[in-house]
Amino acid sequence: MADWTDCLNFGISIAKQASEVVLSAFQQHKEVKLKSSPADLVTETDQRVEKILISAIRNRYPQHRFIGEESVAAGEHLELTDSPTWIIDPIDGTVNFVHRFPFVAISIAFTVNRQTQFGIVYSCVEDKLFYAQRGGGAFLNGEPLHASGQQDISRCVVVTEIGAERDDVALSTMTSNIRRLLQFPVHGVRALGTAAVDMCQVATGGADAYYHIGMHCWDIAASAIIVQEAGGVVMDTDGSEFDMMSRRVIAASSAAVADRIAQVIQAFPCCRDDEDNCGCGATGVN
Amino acid sequence: MADWTDCLNFGISIAKQASEVVLSAFQQHKEVKLKSSPADLVTETDQRVEKILISAIRNRYPQHRFIGEESVAAGEHLELTDSPTWIIDPIDGTVNFVHRFPFVAISIAFTVNRQTQFGIVYSCVEDKLFYAQRGGGAFLNGEPLHASGQQDISRCVVVTEIGAERDDVALSTMTSNIRRLLQFPVHGVRALGTAAVDMCQVATGGADAYYHIGMHCWDIAASAIIVQEAGGVVMDTDGSEFDMMSRRVIAASSAAVADRIAQVIQAFPCCRDDEDNCGCGATGVN
Repeated sequence: MADWTDCLNFGISIAKQASEVVLSAFQQHKEVKLKSSPADLVTETDQRVEKILISAIRNRYPQHRFIGEESVAAGEHLELTDSPTWIIDPIDGTVNFVHRFPFVAISIAFTVNRQTQFGIVYSCVEDKLFYAQRGGGAFLNGEPLHASGQQDISRCVVVTEIGAERDDVALSTMTSNIRRLLQFPVHGVRALGTAAVDMCQVATGGADAYYHIGMHCWDIAASAIIVQEAGGVVMDTDGSEFDMMSRRVIAASSAAVADRIAQVIQAFPCCRDDEDNCGCGATGVN
Repeated sequence: MADWTDCLNFGISIAKQASEVVLSAFQQHKEVKLKSSPADLVTETDQRVEKILISAIRNRYPQHRFIGEESVAAGEHLELTDSPTWIIDPIDGTVNFVHRFPFVAISIAFTVNRQTQFGIVYSCVEDKLFYAQRGGGAFLNGEPLHASGQQDISRCVVVTEIGAERDDVALSTMTSNIRRLLQFPVHGVRALGTAAVDMCQVATGGADAYYHIGMHCWDIAASAIIVQEAGGVVMDTDGSEFDMMSRRVIAASSAAVADRIAQVIQAFPCCRDDEDNCGCGATGVN
């Protein structure tokens, strides 16, 4: 079996370099931000960071492939193949970025034969580097991470995101899901505004579960392996095996907690990431 | 007019000292936490921190009065008088504390003639010290804070908490409120799990609004003046003047945003903090 540690270390080093660009844009003075359109600022920084990451990787590993949020937004077809592939979200938490709400992350996952080998989530403003390599455990700033192991849903802190959908079906589904969780009851519901960082809270044991419908593979591919390597469980919201392209995920401290969440939450329709147009009309998030 | 700067500086110094106790308990090894009841751990630390704070203040300012979460929980009558009064929450975000979700705060407000003179919110794990003195501006780790000034509700990031209530009326009200905000639409909804730190996000400009129903005066007295001194607006959820005893608050970047939120959100019944038993049966949060 190949050892992808060099790739992991390279990924960590370029994530740290790219975070300087993210932080510099994040810290731009309010007046600068208000003069330009916030949407422009984030698009410009997103694209710039993705280019920095992809060109650095391509230079070092010319045979590797890429799935990047900005490349897909620019029209590239999204296809996960057996080739070594870097799945990149240059800024996870773009609404936070625009508002300067202090949680934004660079998310980098690496797959071979469609299996994730490692994941890196760098929460730039917090200066928290989460990472995990298949079979090697999960870490935060070098310290090992362990999911809480909680088995009882009524003692859980649950993280989730409402996302960007604002149509009636999505809003009803999302608020009903939260209400059903509260009726278990759970201890609390939290939302930091970035799927990648939210999900890493399950790896730290600080939260016991996370679920999300409508996010994309680049938002959660890295955190999924971080949760798994911390001893947590990742599955689809319908209780089936985790599929990073399905745009549905539950991450939890235990299979028991993940199953209980899968039993009560409902998904609203959204196209798979690897289908160009399924006709459901749903849009993306983060 | 009296200058309460000495009291503010003393409050900051004891908040920093007390945070060492909070952090030490927060970082206790998982096994320790699992052996004892989480509720016991938090009660013990809450009481210990409140005692440290109150005895230090009493030693220096023997004439001053106190309103403390733990003292009230132990049966002390809550009454805000004209005397110089310290309003103390030793650990805001107790559910976070128990779970080690990394946002917990020491909150200290100081009133004279029932008017808040200064507020201190120390987010211990983040090492973020928010403070403000009446007429002197608001600061985070020494840097001046400015609310975003946003006037348009549809461009807002809103922070809120679902709190501890799990009865049908409270759950319906809270989820309906979130849904109505999303329909404006707002840019996003966030929840960090501590009223004090949530509300300080409005002072930083990272969030544009915060609202909460069911919290207590010690959760928000300090952050209210921090938001006001950062240029933000604080009011009751019914649109009337802010009343720290009413257990309802909106904090916002502008009066326009606060008014729009007041127009759509509804409150569920909860006893005022300064009524011993109004008979509504509602319980507290944080």
